[in-house]
Amino acid sequence: MSVLVVGSTALDSIKTPCRLNPRLLGGSASHAAVAASFFAPVKLVGIVGDDFPRRYIQLYRRHGIDLGGLQLASGKTFHWAGEYEVNMNNRRTLTTELGVFETFTPNLPEAYRQTPFVLLANIAPALQHQVLNQMRRPRFVVADTMDLWLNIALDDLLKLLRRVDALVLNDSEARQLTQEDNIIAAAKKIHRLGPKYAIVKKGEHGALLSSPGGMFISPAFPLNKVVDPTGAGDSFVGGMVGYLAGRSRGAPDAHLKRGMIYGSVVASFCCEGFGLTRTTRLTREAIEQRARLLERMVRF
Amino acid sequence: MSVLVVGSTALDSIKTPCRLNPRLLGGSASHAAVAASFFAPVKLVGIVGDDFPRRYIQLYRRHGIDLGGLQLASGKTFHWAGEYEVNMNNRRTLTTELGVFETFTPNLPEAYRQTPFVLLANIAPALQHQVLNQMRRPRFVVADTMDLWLNIALDDLLKLLRRVDALVLNDSEARQLTQEDNIIAAAKKIHRLGPKYAIVKKGEHGALLSSPGGMFISPAFPLNKVVDPTGAGDSFVGGMVGYLAGRSRGAPDAHLKRGMIYGSVVASFCCEGFGLTRTTRLTREAIEQRARLLERMVRF
Repeated sequence: MSVLVVGSTALDSIKTPCRLNPRLLGGSASHAAVAASFFAPVKLVGIVGDDFPRRYIQLYRRHGIDLGGLQLASGKTFHWAGEYEVNMNNRRTLTTELGVFETFTPNLPEAYRQTPFVLLANIAPALQHQVLNQMRRPRFVVADTMDLWLNIALDDLLKLLRRVDALVLNDSEARQLTQEDNIIAAAKKIHRLGPKYAIVKKGEHGALLSSPGGMFISPAFPLNKVVDPTGAGDSFVGGMVGYLAGRSRGAPDAHLKRGMIYGSVVASFCCEGFGLTRTTRLTREAIEQRARLLERMVRF
Repeated sequence: MSVLVVGSTALDSIKTPCRLNPRLLGGSASHAAVAASFFAPVKLVGIVGDDFPRRYIQLYRRHGIDLGGLQLASGKTFHWAGEYEVNMNNRRTLTTELGVFETFTPNLPEAYRQTPFVLLANIAPALQHQVLNQMRRPRFVVADTMDLWLNIALDDLLKLLRRVDALVLNDSEARQLTQEDNIIAAAKKIHRLGPKYAIVKKGEHGALLSSPGGMFISPAFPLNKVVDPTGAGDSFVGGMVGYLAGRSRGAPDAHLKRGMIYGSVVASFCCEGFGLTRTTRLTREAIEQRARLLERMVRF
C-alpha cells in the first residue's frame, strides 16, 4: 500500500565544524519521502520555487516518488540554514526563509485522496489539517511536529492530535507538550490528547513507543561518527511509516515496533552523510543488513 | 560462585526537591553488595566508623553478606551529602567527609582471597589495586570508577585498567577518559587501555557493552517516577556481577548481556526509593518479573 507524505520541501545550508554545505535537498517531507520509498510507493505533497534544482526533482523520481502533489510556484524555495556544534547534538538555526511556503495551500490530486497511510511530516499544523481534510478515511495517520509549533501554533496542534493515530516528537518536545519532566510519564500523558500511539524520539538513545500494548524500547543504531544529523528524525518516521505501508497483512499497529527499527536504521544512514547524500544511495538490502545487525545488538 | 565487592561504605545525606534524608546507608560497595546478593554470595571489603548504625550492619547480614572484610575503625564513617535538581539528572555534591576512609588499608581475610568474581566498585584506584594485589587468580574482575579519579588519580586508574576484564563507567567519563566525543568510538577505544569489555552507562537511556563479540545495547527499565537515583550505577554493576557469579556454567562473558539486563532491573528498583530502602525489600521473584517485563519491551 502507498504512503502520502506532506511536509517541508526545502533547501538546507548546513554548517558543521568541518564543512559548509550550501543548498542541499532538505525538508521534512524530502527526508521522510525518500526514507519511506525503500518500503512502499510514496506520494509527495509540498511546494518548491523556481530556484529548485532540477537534479533534486530527478532524485525524487529515482526513488519512484509520485510528484503529482508537488507544486512548482514562482518565488524562492523554503531555505533553512543551521550550524552544528562539535558534539553534533546542539544545533542553531541561522536562517529560515519560508519563500513559497508562506502562501502554500496544499491541494491534493484526486488520486492522492484514498492513500491508506498518511504521514504528516513536520510542518505547520494548519497545513497538516488541510491535507487531512482532503483525505478519505485513511487507514493510519502519523503526525510529526517540532517545538516551533508548540510555541506558536499549540491550539492547531492540539486539534490535530485528536485526528491522528500516532504522534512522533522528540523528548524535549514531549516534556513541553505534557508539562511533565519524566519522559515515560510524558509519553503516557500524550494518549489523553488523542493519539493511541505516542513515539518519543531520543536521538542517539533511540526512541520509545507507548501504546495500548505497553511500552517498546527502540534502539538507535550505534554510529562511530555522525557526519550530519539533519533529517534523521524525518528519516526515522518516514522509514517507519513506509515499513507499515509495505506490510499489507494485519493491523498497522502490529508492525509498528519493527517499523521503528527500520526507521532507526534509515535514520542512522542519514546521519552518515550531509543532507540526503547517503540516504539516496541506499538499497533495501543494505537496510535489511543493518536491521539484522541492530537486532543482534539487542538480543540477549 | 561468590563475589568480592570492595568500594565505599558510607552514610549518605540526600536532598531532593521533595525531601531531605540524612545519614542513609550508602556508598558504592553497599549498593553493589546488596544488588549482587540477590544472585550470589557476597564478601564485602570496606571500612566504617564507630558512628555506623548497628541497623545497617543488620541490613548487610539480612542479605547474607560476609562482613569478614569490613573493618570497624574508631572515627567517623565516610559521609557524602548531595542535592538533586527537579529533573533528577543533575546532582551537586554538598559535602564529602572521608572520615575513616582517609587511612583505610584493605586487608583481606584469607577466606576472601580465592573469590572467583571481583567487583572493584567505585573508590580510589589505589585501593582497588591493593585489593587486587591480594587476590589469587580471580576468574573475572570488573572495575567501576568516577570522574573524580580521572581528575586526580588518572595514572593509578590507567594501571588498573591493564588488570581488569571489564570497565564500567558513565558516558561523560568515557568521553573524558578517551578524549573522544562519540560514545561508541569512546567505548571501542577503551579496549586499547586494557579491558576486554567496556560498559558505558547512560542512566535512563540504558548502557552499552563493547566486547570482542560486538556491541550490545542494554535498555534501562522505564520508570514513571524517579525518587532517588543515588547508587543506581552501583546497583547496576552489582546486579550484573552478581548475576555472572550466579551462573556456574560457561565462560563469564557469555552471561554478560543478561547480567546487564538484571543490573538494569536492580538499578531501576534502586531509583524508586531513597538510598537502599527499596532495594533492600526486593525479592528474586520481583527482579525476575521486572526482567521479563523489560525483555518484552525490547522484543519486536
